[in-house]
Amino acid sequence: MVDQDAVRPVAAGPPAVPSLRWDEPPEGPVLVLLDQTRLPGEEVELVCTDVPALVQAIRTLAVRGAPLLGIAGAYGLALAAARGFDVEEAAELLAHARPTAVNLGYGVRRAADGYRRALEEGKGRDAAAAVALAEARALHREDIEASARMAEHGLALLGGLLPGGGYRILTHCNTGALVSGGEGTAFAVARAAHRVGELRRLWVDETRPLLQGARLTAYEAARCGMAYTVLADSAAGSLFAAGEVDAVLIGADRIAADGSVANKVGSYPLAVLARHHGVPFVVVAPTTTVDLETADGASIEVEQRAGSEVTEFPVPDGTGVMGAGGGISATSAGSAVPVAPAGAQAYNPAFDVTPPDLVSAIVTEAGVLSPVTGAGLAELCARSRQVTIS
Amino acid sequence: MVDQDAVRPVAAGPPAVPSLRWDEPPEGPVLVLLDQTRLPGEEVELVCTDVPALVQAIRTLAVRGAPLLGIAGAYGLALAAARGFDVEEAAELLAHARPTAVNLGYGVRRAADGYRRALEEGKGRDAAAAVALAEARALHREDIEASARMAEHGLALLGGLLPGGGYRILTHCNTGALVSGGEGTAFAVARAAHRVGELRRLWVDETRPLLQGARLTAYEAARCGMAYTVLADSAAGSLFAAGEVDAVLIGADRIAADGSVANKVGSYPLAVLARHHGVPFVVVAPTTTVDLETADGASIEVEQRAGSEVTEFPVPDGTGVMGAGGGISATSAGSAVPVAPAGAQAYNPAFDVTPPDLVSAIVTEAGVLSPVTGAGLAELCARSRQVTIS
Repeated sequence: MVDQDAVRPVAAGPPAVPSLRWDEPPEGPVLVLLDQTRLPGEEVELVCTDVPALVQAIRTLAVRGAPLLGIAGAYGLALAAARGFDVEEAAELLAHARPTAVNLGYGVRRAADGYRRALEEGKGRDAAAAVALAEARALHREDIEASARMAEHGLALLGGLLPGGGYRILTHCNTGALVSGGEGTAFAVARAAHRVGELRRLWVDETRPLLQGARLTAYEAARCGMAYTVLADSAAGSLFAAGEVDAVLIGADRIAADGSVANKVGSYPLAVLARHHGVPFVVVAPTTTVDLETADGASIEVEQRAGSEVTEFPVPDGTGVMGAGGGISATSAGSAVPVAPAGAQAYNPAFDVTPPDLVSAIVTEAGVLSPVTGAGLAELCARSRQVTIS
Repeated sequence: MVDQDAVRPVAAGPPAVPSLRWDEPPEGPVLVLLDQTRLPGEEVELVCTDVPALVQAIRTLAVRGAPLLGIAGAYGLALAAARGFDVEEAAELLAHARPTAVNLGYGVRRAADGYRRALEEGKGRDAAAAVALAEARALHREDIEASARMAEHGLALLGGLLPGGGYRILTHCNTGALVSGGEGTAFAVARAAHRVGELRRLWVDETRPLLQGARLTAYEAARCGMAYTVLADSAAGSLFAAGEVDAVLIGADRIAADGSVANKVGSYPLAVLARHHGVPFVVVAPTTTVDLETADGASIEVEQRAGSEVTEFPVPDGTGVMGAGGGISATSAGSAVPVAPAGAQAYNPAFDVTPPDLVSAIVTEAGVLSPVTGAGLAELCARSRQVTIS
């Protein structure tokens, strides 16, 4: 079940509401999500008291972004365990809520494995639930740490690639604090550059159809005080042609064993443009996004979403006053304005796949891989797992 | 002044309302435009009784598309002459209503030259106005004829490039009957392929920010009974990668003397993708779109439009019921839903420029140019002008 918590007006300064938090009110444990479909107009928290509510929040993108989906999946499993629901069923439901982000399955598996291990060791259900929660919290902490490491490695990479400083960085979709326990992936690198005074401009692709760039990245950039400019995705070509882009920084939803990168639809055209213009195309993602079980780009399952995301524009009820709404969700209260003729079909893949030869570098918490090769990726992952285990 | 004429519900079958027509009711001559900002939801006619109203309609894109802008400019000049307004002032206002489409200035100049010539020959103002109107009508007829010739040449070109038939054509923006006295430019070629049973699919880029693809091209494709699919502009990359695009067909707003093509923003990224995937990238435009006075791509003035087209989504009043609205215009009655934080800046060029080496062919009414060279373009234009003069 989902309850709507307080509606808070948007304020300047650092985000007041974390993208996700575990809470234990007297009525029992809950997972509280910042509803990202309501941003940037409103900061509304969704309180999930069971797994179906969380699955729904994942599907409608109220909670989204590869690293955060991993954390949400782990806490979701812990929630099922803590509330005495069927944990195996919860694991199944959560892991398949969306197909492309590998982190979701990883997070769920990690908490579920902890839970099962505890039961096998003869611990009771409550103790096993506590282990699942501890795993979720550990993943959350690791993600914060990974985010800081990626920002550090990414900043060093930019320094090497662009010795002149004053970076004009183009980014796509949203990869900041809203997708992470920490400051995010690609956005965390831009934020690190901003912190040291080297971010001249952040070019923010609006990211159709759901506008995560215009709504979420611009919101984070504004709160961080960055110089940023929003653009229609296809206007990026003009920026490249004008020499206005020094580097592209994006996140990833799944990286295959050969280094192919699945990320928000629109990433691949940027990679092709970047190659055409000799601009570095850099992917920033934790090693938990690497899926060594998926051999190559062709093996990545790309989520196809409803065509109505393209052919209709959702308008919250009671809008009409600037700044009062702006949320985008197939399910939020409101109505849909058609932007195509009735009955129009749409092609709406959520992601696309960029082959490794178009990726200049992959920045992970364990270091930077460049050039991108399958062998290098495997080595980086092995190093990261050693670090985690040690 | 603009009057709103009858609101007609959208029907299947060929367009009931021409995109532009000259009328002479008892109150005096008028130029009647199909308001393209209200499509596909409603077919509303705008009745322009003076030049400022037409200039406003051009700026808000109620009337748009390079060839149609030429015709509208010529009729606008004729309107000023017929109603006894200051013709020189009208010529100035109309020619500069939008900067990029060369046809607009051409149409205005042609009608104005006819008017001035008549005065110089000692004819009275009424007779001179009649000459201006005759020039507008001639341009209108020539455009219909040019459209048919482009479709013919384009279809022959596709036959040569893609001998297997069954074309899957990707197009951007809107280039059909809504931009032309006839069936249009790029869309006319797709329509010709559809007529002979060789159009397997028309991929329709939605064309942000104003969604001319989703709203207008899809509307025309649906009325023509084509198999068509709308997509977010940045999803085109996935189609190319999947081998689902046989050719790209687009129009043009201005073609410089070196063959550089200014067209709706998003055309250039398609040209780069097409080159990367070895797919033909074909520009379809009448020779009136060629501007031999503009030396090259860098010399083309690209219109920068309001950032609010990107950061806000206009919603017509009283919407909320599917199919009842859907118009997009900065000026139509209604309200704006913000899709970016308050105060967000946006980069919003209306056009981009594709260099000649990325253009596989330019299809004009006078023939096909491939490869695209300045010398070839000049020759094609000379041939076309001979045809017109003869």
